[in-house]
Amino acid sequence: MRISQLAREADVPVATIKFYLREKLLHDGELTSPTQAQYDETHVQRLKLVRALLGPGGLSIAATRELLAALAAPPEALHDLLGIAHQAVNPPAPDGLDLVPAYQLMGRWGWRIHEKDRDSQAALARALQALDDAGFDLPEGALDLYARVMKDMAEAEVRGVPTDSVEAAVRYVVLGTVLVEPLLLALRRLAQQDASSRRFGADATSAGAAPPERAAK
Amino acid sequence: MRISQLAREADVPVATIKFYLREKLLHDGELTSPTQAQYDETHVQRLKLVRALLGPGGLSIAATRELLAALAAPPEALHDLLGIAHQAVNPPAPDGLDLVPAYQLMGRWGWRIHEKDRDSQAALARALQALDDAGFDLPEGALDLYARVMKDMAEAEVRGVPTDSVEAAVRYVVLGTVLVEPLLLALRRLAQQDASSRRFGADATSAGAAPPERAAK
Repeated sequence: MRISQLAREADVPVATIKFYLREKLLHDGELTSPTQAQYDETHVQRLKLVRALLGPGGLSIAATRELLAALAAPPEALHDLLGIAHQAVNPPAPDGLDLVPAYQLMGRWGWRIHEKDRDSQAALARALQALDDAGFDLPEGALDLYARVMKDMAEAEVRGVPTDSVEAAVRYVVLGTVLVEPLLLALRRLAQQDASSRRFGADATSAGAAPPERAAK
Repeated sequence: MRISQLAREADVPVATIKFYLREKLLHDGELTSPTQAQYDETHVQRLKLVRALLGPGGLSIAATRELLAALAAPPEALHDLLGIAHQAVNPPAPDGLDLVPAYQLMGRWGWRIHEKDRDSQAALARALQALDDAGFDLPEGALDLYARVMKDMAEAEVRGVPTDSVEAAVRYVVLGTVLVEPLLLALRRLAQQDASSRRFGADATSAGAAPPERAAK
């Protein structure tokens, strides 16, 4: 198909496709004349993936390119993909951050971390540091509880990774990481309010159903 | 105590204390002469809370002031505090967001949400919308799984809310919301890598213990 039809199929403007081609986020089509190229279904799939990574995925162009490079030379194990994906979505660790507390927790729980991903452990170290800076002591046992809960959840999530294509696996892993995070945080806050209404009295709460004036918005 | 001693006790510069006084984030001391005021332990505690809210808590000055106003006129039930705290830390809902899917989930799970907090439900609606925009279908049953996990976690967290002082409760609730979120997300990514190494083969992984060259940093 020509670029105009590709644009229709993938629902992406021609100008955006040209930009992705220049930025090497999309592989070139097959030249049929010096000024014309043919595209196929692989371009449609790639365009949808790139849009999702840059848009809701919130990845930078550089991180997206890095991830796509990993796709182009598929790692032997799907496991590599997760390490590369996490590395791409984590901000790099700031200098001088003490990583030892994070390493110690990984050791204590026996968690095996991908060698390509240092930044998830840095994110853990940073979160622990922020709690410490604020003088906020987690209740006894809270950290182990969080770890246990996240481990159970992660096992269910990883069981669901599709293995039929590398493209589908990357999509699941990256979007599942980035898009599900705000979902989890929103659910935690709402679940806390529900728990709070049960502990501290429910007089001031409304039922979960939609107040009519809001639902109509 | 005079302002200079308050600065030492709370480990906050005098200029910052004067700024907080002007911004009404700190209550005035007792005037002992036209140019001098006396401060007490309540000022030390309040300063520590304000620092934590503005710093690691990441709240704006306006949100901090709103929360402190709630403290100054303590709500009858501690439960109100959580609704107000969540309202303060959530970004406001964008216009035109469809809140009905969030209300429906609250109804389906029977969760009771604080009437002062609309924005947590909006955050849930926004997260669902982003998944939908990306064409990312959660695996069957995943949403209910996430809800169940967050509910168990929230119940443990709310059991831990200290009830000895309103100040301690606010601190626990706000910092526990804001500072624990990055911790949970980091743990989820690490737990996924651990689960992935178990499912997809562990050859490419390193054990959780600190590689010497990183631990030495």
